[in-house]
Amino acid sequence: MIDLVVAGTIGLDDIETPFGRVHHVIGGSAIYASIAASFFAKPGIISIAGVDLPESNYHLLRSRSIDISGVAIDEKTFRWSGLYEFDMNEAKTLKTKLNCVTKFNPKLPESYKGAKFLFLANINPVIQKQVLDQMEEKPFVLLDTMNYWIENKKSALTKIIKRCDLLLLNDSEARQLFDSPNLVKAARLALQLGPKYVVIKKGEHGALLFSKDAHFSAPGYPLENTMDPTGAGDSFAGALAGYLAKVRKTDELSLRRGIVFASAIASFCAEDFSTRRLLKLKYGEIEERYEIFKKIREF
Amino acid sequence: MIDLVVAGTIGLDDIETPFGRVHHVIGGSAIYASIAASFFAKPGIISIAGVDLPESNYHLLRSRSIDISGVAIDEKTFRWSGLYEFDMNEAKTLKTKLNCVTKFNPKLPESYKGAKFLFLANINPVIQKQVLDQMEEKPFVLLDTMNYWIENKKSALTKIIKRCDLLLLNDSEARQLFDSPNLVKAARLALQLGPKYVVIKKGEHGALLFSKDAHFSAPGYPLENTMDPTGAGDSFAGALAGYLAKVRKTDELSLRRGIVFASAIASFCAEDFSTRRLLKLKYGEIEERYEIFKKIREF
Repeated sequence: MIDLVVAGTIGLDDIETPFGRVHHVIGGSAIYASIAASFFAKPGIISIAGVDLPESNYHLLRSRSIDISGVAIDEKTFRWSGLYEFDMNEAKTLKTKLNCVTKFNPKLPESYKGAKFLFLANINPVIQKQVLDQMEEKPFVLLDTMNYWIENKKSALTKIIKRCDLLLLNDSEARQLFDSPNLVKAARLALQLGPKYVVIKKGEHGALLFSKDAHFSAPGYPLENTMDPTGAGDSFAGALAGYLAKVRKTDELSLRRGIVFASAIASFCAEDFSTRRLLKLKYGEIEERYEIFKKIREF
Repeated sequence: MIDLVVAGTIGLDDIETPFGRVHHVIGGSAIYASIAASFFAKPGIISIAGVDLPESNYHLLRSRSIDISGVAIDEKTFRWSGLYEFDMNEAKTLKTKLNCVTKFNPKLPESYKGAKFLFLANINPVIQKQVLDQMEEKPFVLLDTMNYWIENKKSALTKIIKRCDLLLLNDSEARQLFDSPNLVKAARLALQLGPKYVVIKKGEHGALLFSKDAHFSAPGYPLENTMDPTGAGDSFAGALAGYLAKVRKTDELSLRRGIVFASAIASFCAEDFSTRRLLKLKYGEIEERYEIFKKIREF
């Protein structure tokens, strides 16, 4: 029985940052999110990949007790290539080839349908809806997206936002989606659509949690050597979903703690290319960083 | 006897933001900083203004027990006009007329020379040096600057940085001055120049404190209605200097608390044009916001 369903992409990425470049490395929102979630809970992936995806990736996911029975196989894996310039705050997408994702018609394995937590990671909001529609009991739904869907599928995205419990956005997406430079106002507008919680990911500046009555500000981890931010946002969200699935609570204090764990994992993710750092990460290291987060905000 | 010397500019500003425009309003780094500091301690200004500066401003400063015996008078007051666009994160300077500031040859009143705290607010670093040279005992020196001096007086600026105890920079200035997109690395390079502390002001994202061994991250106040960010950075720094002068301590915990008080005052400053909100502000409101800062970082 899995704790958490993760719907999203599986990809092969080409990434260039000021610190190097990698070619054809594993990526995609479902990959980062499920690896991050696996530190806390048992995730099951619902996604699609091509026959060109090296088999070793499946071994690796299985070795972390990630259920991959929801991964459909088609011809060619989703490809993304991105470039990070000097300030590394935002990726410039050089090329996207959706490949098999265009044909993705998600069929949820029976063993997934009763999970109490569902993370709809970044993918076409139409697919996010199809996944949600197949869940048997209403799970706690976390929803992530990206600027592409805000620009191209705003109506479908808005509909799925209305059905989620927790909406994740990065700061520029929040400003864009709600047409407000002010993040507090953007978050308030997001809450009006229906989610109980809104989490705004701010990269090096940390993360914010908004609910109707409360506000939490998580500090950014003082990372000196960011090598590749790819997947940090997906890892953040996956870790948060995994933490909530582990503690089986969704009250505000659990959210706050989950966000700090998620910040810790996202900071590790950015320390090396692709999933490299996450795959070497030990739970004790996450706890150490959690303690540092406590110290850096004391006054 | 004053607690704190504040050196900086007195100006008349024209400001336009998405929420309105004002003409010929009081501004300048010494004005914002000394008003902010006056919530905690007795500041004395060393600056220069023109005969065109309305007399009412002096009454106002005196009514707050701010010593203005160090304000020289010349022909025309420093003028700045700036525009904030949609995201309001950075001012676009439309025009600067230095006027009397070009002739400023600071002469410190005797009553200023023994102050234990000196805030060298944003002004030409050559003037900052002239002020520092006149202090009799070595005070605790806080130093602020802006991109203009980084671009045009880098050598003089570097020299004065080496003589300060606490360097304040905003995030873009820190990246620019140390040619590093990474704020942690920039702060470390800054510490290597000599200051014991480096404070990086990040506007809506809060502020960071770095010392050789420690790191503190102050959250941003969740302000929904920013009307005019002008002077928020000067107010932040002035409030921090005032707080330290009040508690007469410069250990790390005092710095952390001072930064939170400073963040509170800076957030009020941005709620209205020019110094309007600061001049109506009650100490109890600052304390209330300090308590909110405690709550928003709990986990």
